[in-house]
Amino acid sequence: MSEQRNYVKYTFLKIDPAWRRRSSDERAADKREFAAACREFAEDHHLRAYSLVGTRGDSDLMVRAIARTLEPIHELHVLLNQSGLMRYADVAHSYLAMTKESPYSDEPDKPLEPRQGADSKYLIVYPMWKKREWYRLAPEERMRVMREHIDLARRFTGIETNTAYSFGLDDQEFVVAFDADDPAEFLDLVQELRSTESSAYTESETPIFTCISSSVERALDALDGEHGVRASPSDSPGEAVRAPA
Amino acid sequence: MSEQRNYVKYTFLKIDPAWRRRSSDERAADKREFAAACREFAEDHHLRAYSLVGTRGDSDLMVRAIARTLEPIHELHVLLNQSGLMRYADVAHSYLAMTKESPYSDEPDKPLEPRQGADSKYLIVYPMWKKREWYRLAPEERMRVMREHIDLARRFTGIETNTAYSFGLDDQEFVVAFDADDPAEFLDLVQELRSTESSAYTESETPIFTCISSSVERALDALDGEHGVRASPSDSPGEAVRAPA
Amino acid sequence: MSEQRNYVKYTFLKIDPAWRRRSSDERAADKREFAAACREFAEDHHLRAYSLVGTRGDSDLMVRAIARTLEPIHELHVLLNQSGLMRYADVAHSYLAMTKESPYSDEPDKPLEPRQGADSKYLIVYPMWKKREWYRLAPEERMRVMREHIDLARRFTGIETNTAYSFGLDDQEFVVAFDADDPAEFLDLVQELRSTESSAYTESETPIFTCISSSVERALDALDGEHGVRASPSDSPGEAVRAPA
Amino acid sequence: MSEQRNYVKYTFLKIDPAWRRRSSDERAADKREFAAACREFAEDHHLRAYSLVGTRGDSDLMVRAIARTLEPIHELHVLLNQSGLMRYADVAHSYLAMTKESPYSDEPDKPLEPRQGADSKYLIVYPMWKKREWYRLAPEERMRVMREHIDLARRFTGIETNTAYSFGLDDQEFVVAFDADDPAEFLDLVQELRSTESSAYTESETPIFTCISSSVERALDALDGEHGVRASPSDSPGEAVRAPA
Amino acid sequence: MSEQRNYVKYTFLKIDPAWRRRSSDERAADKREFAAACREFAEDHHLRAYSLVGTRGDSDLMVRAIARTLEPIHELHVLLNQSGLMRYADVAHSYLAMTKESPYSDEPDKPLEPRQGADSKYLIVYPMWKKREWYRLAPEERMRVMREHIDLARRFTGIETNTAYSFGLDDQEFVVAFDADDPAEFLDLVQELRSTESSAYTESETPIFTCISSSVERALDALDGEHGVRASPSDSPGEAVRAPA
Repeated sequence: MSEQRNYVKYTFLKIDPAWRRRSSDERAADKREFAAACREFAEDHHLRAYSLVGTRGDSDLMVRAIARTLEPIHELHVLLNQSGLMRYADVAHSYLAMTKESPYSDEPDKPLEPRQGADSKYLIVYPMWKKREWYRLAPEERMRVMREHIDLARRFTGIETNTAYSFGLDDQEFVVAFDADDPAEFLDLVQELRSTESSAYTESETPIFTCISSSVERALDALDGEHGVRASPSDSPGEAVRAPA
Repeated sequence: MSEQRNYVKYTFLKIDPAWRRRSSDERAADKREFAAACREFAEDHHLRAYSLVGTRGDSDLMVRAIARTLEPIHELHVLLNQSGLMRYADVAHSYLAMTKESPYSDEPDKPLEPRQGADSKYLIVYPMWKKREWYRLAPEERMRVMREHIDLARRFTGIETNTAYSFGLDDQEFVVAFDADDPAEFLDLVQELRSTESSAYTESETPIFTCISSSVERALDALDGEHGVRASPSDSPGEAVRAPA
Repeated sequence: MSEQRNYVKYTFLKIDPAWRRRSSDERAADKREFAAACREFAEDHHLRAYSLVGTRGDSDLMVRAIARTLEPIHELHVLLNQSGLMRYADVAHSYLAMTKESPYSDEPDKPLEPRQGADSKYLIVYPMWKKREWYRLAPEERMRVMREHIDLARRFTGIETNTAYSFGLDDQEFVVAFDADDPAEFLDLVQELRSTESSAYTESETPIFTCISSSVERALDALDGEHGVRASPSDSPGEAVRAPA
Repeated sequence: MSEQRNYVKYTFLKIDPAWRRRSSDERAADKREFAAACREFAEDHHLRAYSLVGTRGDSDLMVRAIARTLEPIHELHVLLNQSGLMRYADVAHSYLAMTKESPYSDEPDKPLEPRQGADSKYLIVYPMWKKREWYRLAPEERMRVMREHIDLARRFTGIETNTAYSFGLDDQEFVVAFDADDPAEFLDLVQELRSTESSAYTESETPIFTCISSSVERALDALDGEHGVRASPSDSPGEAVRAPA
Repeated sequence: MSEQRNYVKYTFLKIDPAWRRRSSDERAADKREFAAACREFAEDHHLRAYSLVGTRGDSDLMVRAIARTLEPIHELHVLLNQSGLMRYADVAHSYLAMTKESPYSDEPDKPLEPRQGADSKYLIVYPMWKKREWYRLAPEERMRVMREHIDLARRFTGIETNTAYSFGLDDQEFVVAFDADDPAEFLDLVQELRSTESSAYTESETPIFTCISSSVERALDALDGEHGVRASPSDSPGEAVRAPA
C-alpha cells in the first residue's frame, strides 16, 4: 500500500520588483530557463503551475510537483535555482506533504495520484492544523463528526477535495486543495461548514490561496505581462501582451 | 441570484523609498503607466483609488477593483505589473472577497454592486474573523444578536456599510468597508459597538485602514508630492505640488 | 462639542543604514527638506519631534502632528515624502487617533488640544487594547474600576496623561501618551498599576516607546551625529557634533 | 557525568537570490571557502551538512556542529563569516542545545555523542516547547505518560530519536532530531502520536525541517546547481550539474 | 534611594552580509570607529560587549551600556550611528531597563550598579513578562512563591542573577541577566525551575540570548574574522585571524 503514496510539494514564489527592471530580453530568458526545468521534471512526474497575480499579495506563482520519492523534487528545485528567475525570486510559502488513504473515506480504491483530467479553472490551497482535542476523541466519534462534514461537502458537486498529510514533514498537519470552476460555490461551501461540529476542531487553516490554473508559460508571462516564454513565429520574444497605455 | 455577485479585490501598495530616488521624469512615467492600467479596467468594471499617506505606515495607496469574474481582476494586476511603479512597489496587504446577500438584511433588493454615487470622503476597510462559537449558535439567536448591532449602527446616519465575504477565497472571513465623510462619527460608532453582544463574538478585526477617497491620479501624486500624472497645459510634468522649502 | 476634537498622528521613522553612506552634504540637505516640511505644518497646527536613538531599536525619530481635520496631516506626509530623508526611511510604526472627552474625567473643561507649555523631557507612548470583557461591564462598574486606577496615578505628580481614541480609525483602541521628566517615576507608577483591578482588563499595551523630547532639528541631527539642519554662522553644515575618535 | 555532555548547534542558512547573480567562478570560490571552514572544524569535532532545497522555503542549507565546549562552535561561525558565501547568506534559523541524559531513558549507558555510523538519508529537526502544566505533574505521572509515548515510537523501527536540551540557552526547551530513511514512516509515527496523552502537553513543535543528508560539498552545490566545490579532474569548476534546458 | 538607580541598555546588532563585501581596510576602519565610541562612553560609565556569533542567528554583537541618566546612553548611540559599522548594521533587539531594589531580596544593601569584577565567561539575557494573575496575588503570597524560586536558584552557586525593570519604559516588564561560566549549569537550573510554582506565572521569557563575554575589539573582530581593531605592531590591520582554507 505504501508504494501508492506520493510526495506533494507546493512552492509559492514572490518575484522581487527589481526583476521587472531587467530588460525584456533578459526577462524572457529568465522565464525560459524556469519553464525548461519544469518541463524536464514533468516528463516523468506530475507538475502543474498556477498564477496568483490578482488573488494574493504575497505570492505571484505556484508550482505543484508530485513524485514517488523526495529526490526528484529536490532535483527540480536545484534546477529551478539555476534559472535566471530564481536570482530575483523568493520562496514565499512552501508546503511539503504526502498522499495517504483517508480513514474516513468510503472509496478504498481512490487513487493517491493526481488525476490528469481534473483540470478545473481554480485550485484553492491551504495548510491546516486541528486542535489537539480532536486527536483525543474516540475513532468512532471522529468518524461521526467527519461524516457530517463530508455529507455537507458532497452537496457542492462542483468541488473536488484533495487532502495530503504533512505530520512531521513540515509545520502543518494537512495540506488541503480544492479543484473548483466557480470560487463562489467554494465560498458558499466553506461558509456552511462553519456551522458543523467538525469546524470547532480546526486550530488554523490560513493562509488560503486562490490559485488560477495555468500553463507554466502563462503563469510566467503574468509576472511581467510579456510573452517571454512561448517563442513562436507570431510572438516576438518580449512583446507586451497588452501595453498599459 | 448568483449572477448578481461580484468579486471585490483590495490591493494595498507600499512604495519602496528607493523609488523616490528616481528622476522626476521617470516617476511621472511610472505613475502614468499605472494610471493607464487602472483606466483601462475602469472602462468595463468598477475601480476606485485611495491614498493612505498620513493615515497608515505600511501602505501608501489602495486600489479597489470590482468585477463579475476573476479574470479581469487578474488581468488588471498583470497590467499593473507592467507599469514602472510596480518595479518599486510591494503589495503590503491584499484582500479578495465576493458580494453576497446578507442573511440579516431586511433589504432583499439591495444591489450587490457598488453604488457609483456613494463617494464619501473616506473609506474605512478591515478584514474580519468571527469566533467559531458564533457559527454554532442557532440562526434565530444570531439574528437577534445582529439586530442589536444593526439597530445601533443605523443611528449613525453618516456611515454606510459594505460587507463582502471571503470564506475559502482568502485568509479572512469578511472584508468590511464603511463609507464616511466624518471619521469621528465612525470612531464613536465603533466605540459604542464594543458594548454590544455581537462584539464578544469578534475574533479579529485588524488591520484597520482609514483610506482617503481620491482619483487614481491624485493618489499617485501623493506618493512623491509631484504632478506626474495629470499632464495638462498648466501642469508641467514632474512639477512639485508644493516644494517643502 | 465635536469641533473641539483633534486628530493626533504619531509617525515613527526608521532610517535605512544606507542613508548614512551618503555624503555629509547630501545628508544635511535631506534633513533640511524634512525640517522644512515640519515647519510649514507647525505654522498652523501642532507638531513635536522626538528622538528614539538609544531608547528603541526599531525607530529613530517620531513626529507627532495634531490638527482639526485629516487633510493637513495627509498633506504633511505628502511633503515629507518629497524630502530626501524619506528616500531612505521607513515608517516603522504609525498610530492615528482622535482626542475625545473621557467618560471617567472629572474635569469636564479639560481642553482637547495639546498644551503648548507641557514640555517634559520625555514622552512615553503606547497603543492600547482592552479585553472585550471590559466593554460588557456596566458603566458604573467601569467607573469604579477606573477611579481606583486614576487615584493611584494622581499620586505620581510628575506624570501627565494624554489619552487619544483610535476605535475604527486604526488597529488599536487607544493611544496613550505620558509627559514625564523622570522615567523612573513612570516605571514605578506602571509597576504599581499592575496590581489594580483595571490592569486585568488590558489586552495589550505594547510596543512602549520612550521618546526624548527634542526640536525637529536636534532629532534629525541625532540620526547621523552631524549638524546638518541648523545652518548658522558657527555651524558649518555637515560638521560632526563630536567625532567618534 | 557532566564531561559527557556536548553542545549541539543547528545553523540554517538562506541564500540571498542576489548570490546567484555572481559569476560561476565567484560562486565556486565562495563555496570552497565555506567548505574549508567546515572541514577544519570537523577535524576535531562533529559536523554534518544537510540540504533543504525542495523541502523548505525559508532555508537552503543546514550545518549541525557538535563540540564539548562553546568556543569551537563560536570559532567555526567566525570562520564561516569569513567565507564569501556568508556575504550573501542569512541565518534563517538557529538552535543552540546540549545533550543530557534523559530522565525517561532505560538505557543509562546511551552515549551522549552522535554516533558516526547513523547516516540516515534524512534528518527531521524541530524545536519543542511543552506546556507549563507538564512540569507541574508528579515525576511518576510524567514517567507514565512518557512510557506510552516511547512504547509507540519503538514500533517504528526505522526512526531513531535524538533529543537535546535548550532550557535557558535558547528560546526553545528542546531540539528534537530524528534519523529516518523513509519520511513516510516518520509521518505515520507523528500522526499516531497525536492520540497519545503526551501530545496534549505540547505547547509548540514548529517549524519542522525535513533535511536531506548530504556532504558539505553536495549541500553547497545544490544552492546553484553547479559543481563548484569538488574540484576534480573530471569536474571543471563551475560546470553545471545539469543545464535546465 | 532614587539616586542609586541606573539605566541599563542592551543593544543587539545584526550585521548586513553586504558589510563583509567591503574591503578589509574599510572594515577595519568601520570597527575602529565603533570601538572608539564605546571607549569614550566607558570612560565615565559602564559598558560591556558580547559576541553572539555561533550562539544566535538574529544577532552578532551586543553592547550593554549602564548610566545614571538616559542622556549619555542617547549620546552613545548617536556616536555609534556616526561609525562606519552602523551603515551596515541593524538593531535586531533593544531592551531599555532600570535597576531597582527587589521586594524579595534579603540583601537590602545590594548595590544597584554592575560589579566590575563579575566577569563571567557568559551572560545570558532575556526579556520577561509575568501573567497578570501574578500581580493580583497578595504580597505575602508572592513572597512565598518567590522564596521557593530563590532557594532553588541559590543551590546553583556558579550563577549570579541581575534583574532590571522595564515597566512603562519598554515592551517587557523585566530584563533578566545571568552571569555564568558554565552554561550547562544554567541549563540545569532553568530546567529545574520549570517545576516550581513561580514558573506557572511566567507569561513569556523569550528570546533567550547566550552572550559570549568579550572585549569590544574581540566582539568586533568576530564579525569578519579579521584583526581590524586592535592595531598593534604584531597585528597588521585587516590580517585574517585564521584563513578558512
